[in-house]
Amino acid sequence: MHEVDYVSGKTRIYGIVGHPIEQVRSPEMFTASFKSRKADAILLPFHVLPVDFDRVVPSLMLMPNLDGLIFTIPFKQQAMALADVIGPNAKIVGAINALARQSGGGWKGEIFDGLGCVEGFRKSGHSFAGKRVMLIGAGGAGSAIGVAIAHEGPASMRVFDPDSGRAEDLMRKINQVDPAIAVVYEEPNCDGIDILLNASPVGMLDDARMPISIERFDPKLIVFDAIVKPEMTPLLQLAAQSGCAFIQGRQMMYGQISKMTDYFGV
Amino acid sequence: MHEVDYVSGKTRIYGIVGHPIEQVRSPEMFTASFKSRKADAILLPFHVLPVDFDRVVPSLMLMPNLDGLIFTIPFKQQAMALADVIGPNAKIVGAINALARQSGGGWKGEIFDGLGCVEGFRKSGHSFAGKRVMLIGAGGAGSAIGVAIAHEGPASMRVFDPDSGRAEDLMRKINQVDPAIAVVYEEPNCDGIDILLNASPVGMLDDARMPISIERFDPKLIVFDAIVKPEMTPLLQLAAQSGCAFIQGRQMMYGQISKMTDYFGV
Repeated sequence: MHEVDYVSGKTRIYGIVGHPIEQVRSPEMFTASFKSRKADAILLPFHVLPVDFDRVVPSLMLMPNLDGLIFTIPFKQQAMALADVIGPNAKIVGAINALARQSGGGWKGEIFDGLGCVEGFRKSGHSFAGKRVMLIGAGGAGSAIGVAIAHEGPASMRVFDPDSGRAEDLMRKINQVDPAIAVVYEEPNCDGIDILLNASPVGMLDDARMPISIERFDPKLIVFDAIVKPEMTPLLQLAAQSGCAFIQGRQMMYGQISKMTDYFGV
Repeated sequence: MHEVDYVSGKTRIYGIVGHPIEQVRSPEMFTASFKSRKADAILLPFHVLPVDFDRVVPSLMLMPNLDGLIFTIPFKQQAMALADVIGPNAKIVGAINALARQSGGGWKGEIFDGLGCVEGFRKSGHSFAGKRVMLIGAGGAGSAIGVAIAHEGPASMRVFDPDSGRAEDLMRKINQVDPAIAVVYEEPNCDGIDILLNASPVGMLDDARMPISIERFDPKLIVFDAIVKPEMTPLLQLAAQSGCAFIQGRQMMYGQISKMTDYFGV
């Protein structure tokens, strides 16, 4: 009988907690990230029903060989109560997606949805400092992105969401991070901005729409789309045709995996 | 970034629960067994402290994508309370080492420590039916082996353990399974027996001792040793030199993995 070489009694355990769980991509991606750092660690799908969350997750945390958890839909808000120490983004957003065992005891929680976007920009050689930004979408992803960008010192941020209450909520959070940022609610437009970010679902999968009405971008504009599938959304296709630098959802995802792997101490 | 191919959101989860956990071999061996049957399933080490057992393990069982658990030291007795349906060996032994989700709901538990020995014999072309057996060692492994053999219709069983109370306890269990078996307590000897089994720790690792004082075996004797390391204990070396058929601890272990994989429905 053969043995496999990727799990043993010494393997450190991580999990992604969600409901449903079958669609998550974290197990194969984080396990590869751990492996690329030569760590004997694996990330498993932990399917937890919402009704069982408060019983199951604190129990998982009692296993001494479990070092971290990722939270996805619908648990990001609820999971915050499990952290002894809460990171600066999570504090503002009111949710975590990563919980890591601290070497000195206890658990720390942070949300990396937005930090992945910032990391994707950094790896592409772009920063938000002093820039004028338009952000479309103020839902879960948009809020996290907006708050993470607010920590990077942009000059101004325009926020749009069809649900204006949601947009105003994010605008308050942005100024909570940095009162010096000029924040306004505005319909999607590119007048006098340096960076355009889409965090709305417009353009996802077979959706051929653009989140903004425009024929061509100024080639100096930097365009970002949080959507992972397709890799090239209609928005990013226009950016490419216009000669703009652009950053894909996939780069945000890789940035997030890298930052979260650091956070897990792997 | 690469992805690994052995875990995804769809992977079914199994675990071995023990304390300590780092020394267990089940993760690499069962995962290989699952893989050999083309199942998208993995078995992980779940380190549970004894003080947390009653809280953590029932919580793990609430995860809909967790299909089975293995129990090792010190949890085999305690785990029996988690099973809705208890197998014939577990009923007599008073312990389980496998707990499997039933397709119709609920969990079934059984102990395979002894069934692996029977399976190892079967795969080597030997049976216990009508045979005269000497069993040395009536601890955890010895009891499970004795009870499993009792289900196979041997003519007689001699049992030895330096702790005679433990031996008498096993003798009662053997006759509970089958009152027709002639069971006696006897010092290790080979007079008029067909099968000699060692389930004591004598001969393990660097221990050069034999569990029985003898210079040479009758070549018709079948000799078994439950010890996995070394593969060839002093007892099995003498069996080989005497021209006897012999069955190794490793064969018992493989037999157990195969039976347990069946039990898990993989």
